[in-house]
Amino acid sequence: MRNINEDTITQAVLASMDDRCDSRLRTIITSLVQHLHSFVRDIKLTEAEWLKAIQFLTEAGHITDDKRQEFILLSDTLGLSMLVMALNHKKPTHCTEATVFGPFYVEGAPEYENGADIANGARGEPCFVSGQIRGLDGTPVSGARIDVWQSDEDGFYDVQRSSDGSGSAAHQARGRLYSGIDGKFQFRSILAEAYPIPHDGPVGRMLEALGRHPWRPAHLHFMIVAPGYETLITHVFRDGDKYLDSDAVFGVRSTLITDWVEHDPGVAPDGTKMKKPFYTVNYDFVLNPAEVHA
Amino acid sequence: MRNINEDTITQAVLASMDDRCDSRLRTIITSLVQHLHSFVRDIKLTEAEWLKAIQFLTEAGHITDDKRQEFILLSDTLGLSMLVMALNHKKPTHCTEATVFGPFYVEGAPEYENGADIANGARGEPCFVSGQIRGLDGTPVSGARIDVWQSDEDGFYDVQRSSDGSGSAAHQARGRLYSGIDGKFQFRSILAEAYPIPHDGPVGRMLEALGRHPWRPAHLHFMIVAPGYETLITHVFRDGDKYLDSDAVFGVRSTLITDWVEHDPGVAPDGTKMKKPFYTVNYDFVLNPAEVHA
Ligand SMILES: [Fe+2]
Ligand SMILES: [Fe+2]
Repeated sequence: MRNINEDTITQAVLASMDDRCDSRLRTIITSLVQHLHSFVRDIKLTEAEWLKAIQFLTEAGHITDDKRQEFILLSDTLGLSMLVMALNHKKPTHCTEATVFGPFYVEGAPEYENGADIANGARGEPCFVSGQIRGLDGTPVSGARIDVWQSDEDGFYDVQRSSDGSGSAAHQARGRLYSGIDGKFQFRSILAEAYPIPHDGPVGRMLEALGRHPWRPAHLHFMIVAPGYETLITHVFRDGDKYLDSDAVFGVRSTLITDWVEHDPGVAPDGTKMKKPFYTVNYDFVLNPAEVHA
Repeated sequence: MRNINEDTITQAVLASMDDRCDSRLRTIITSLVQHLHSFVRDIKLTEAEWLKAIQFLTEAGHITDDKRQEFILLSDTLGLSMLVMALNHKKPTHCTEATVFGPFYVEGAPEYENGADIANGARGEPCFVSGQIRGLDGTPVSGARIDVWQSDEDGFYDVQRSSDGSGSAAHQARGRLYSGIDGKFQFRSILAEAYPIPHDGPVGRMLEALGRHPWRPAHLHFMIVAPGYETLITHVFRDGDKYLDSDAVFGVRSTLITDWVEHDPGVAPDGTKMKKPFYTVNYDFVLNPAEVHA
């Protein structure tokens, strides 16, 4: 510890941890220090680059508030969020795959009956969503709690509108409902559209410097919770979207892509007579049985 | 890109960068992504742990302002700052070694004549500092710009006092002076004392969880700039300090430790008659010739 140099520093940091501290924490910090030091050595990070990194993190911290989470955007755009999700949710074949949670989920969204219009005034082409929740053996899962959320036709989630003062603070295009006895659910919403992740901050500048765009292919978020099953956090992606091959947050899995079917004016699945075109999408979810802890 | 999973994600992130973007940036991000992904895989980071990391970075961002820099503290306490400094300032034997810059340097500190009292009211035992700036061949370096800064007897830098409202915003125990024709400098200040880095934020909680203390051994910061020489950023450490073997930021190099000599009341080096005990410290700095860029 009295002769710190580029060769001794890593061991000095590791040796500074008390043997009695939490062993999982030690494992994490040991690995983090080793990897960060290897990174700095591998590229011989300069002091000017180090200072840019400090400034980047500082700006990310300052733009982050209760509506905007730049560190999640950073994790998402570096593929870390998807990696963590994939590592922690390896599922048997035929289960619906998981993908990133994203920064736009909100606690306390309104509960709706099946068949309700969850758009609640959000602008977009009408879209009727339906599906069934099943277990791996095909059993319908009734009473599953289904959270859904999506952006509007301009690519904004309600929380983004309420924070910029251009809209109300009401929950729009998000809600909670429950599957019926037959495991089925249905609701009306709006058509999912591609949108850019917030890119007016340091993460947006990073993407630009890397020659990357900030767009995500059109998708509808789902979180499904049912007793006896692993919680499923995922999206359903709209086939044909031009960003399916370049999702800014690396969330696409081919099994999650499905058809949004366009219909001429006429009678919608819920019996409504539609004077203008509308869309329907049907997607079934297969839940993984929860691990039984012995 | 349509089949992202734990095996394909890293390559997908790397492939998303445009070939035409800045090649140094690509090198840095490629290495960063590979190391961060390896870290997450090696320890199988859980979603709860990932969320704690997001919250940690968010808190670090929110506590950071123009007076407090939690990300530098994080870099310092993980040994990254010292590693970057050591990698970028490998010097020939006999040159004065570099160490961490730290977060308490301030632009615009007052200029002083040699012999002046730079404490400017900061509390502490009187201390008379002197030394000589030389090149590797022993030539005295005249007109070298010398920035010095240090904490007071309570362990606070002036910027910490002015931000908590308990003191003035004046520059205390910091200043700029220039070496004379003979390369020598001297000034009066106060005795350097051990101090804890700011530990009332997330970095402090991290240290506590790791069973680490936040203390730094007593030291005096120097930054020395002279034409034709590599800029030297370093400290001089006070021999005998109990934290020399456990510096919270891993900045100690044995060649930077020297004696602070305690004197009974009497005549100080500058001729002042001292009624109470005082200290003297003498340390010479050997600068590395600047690299000549062909
Ligand atoms: Fe989304
Ligand atoms: Fe210091």
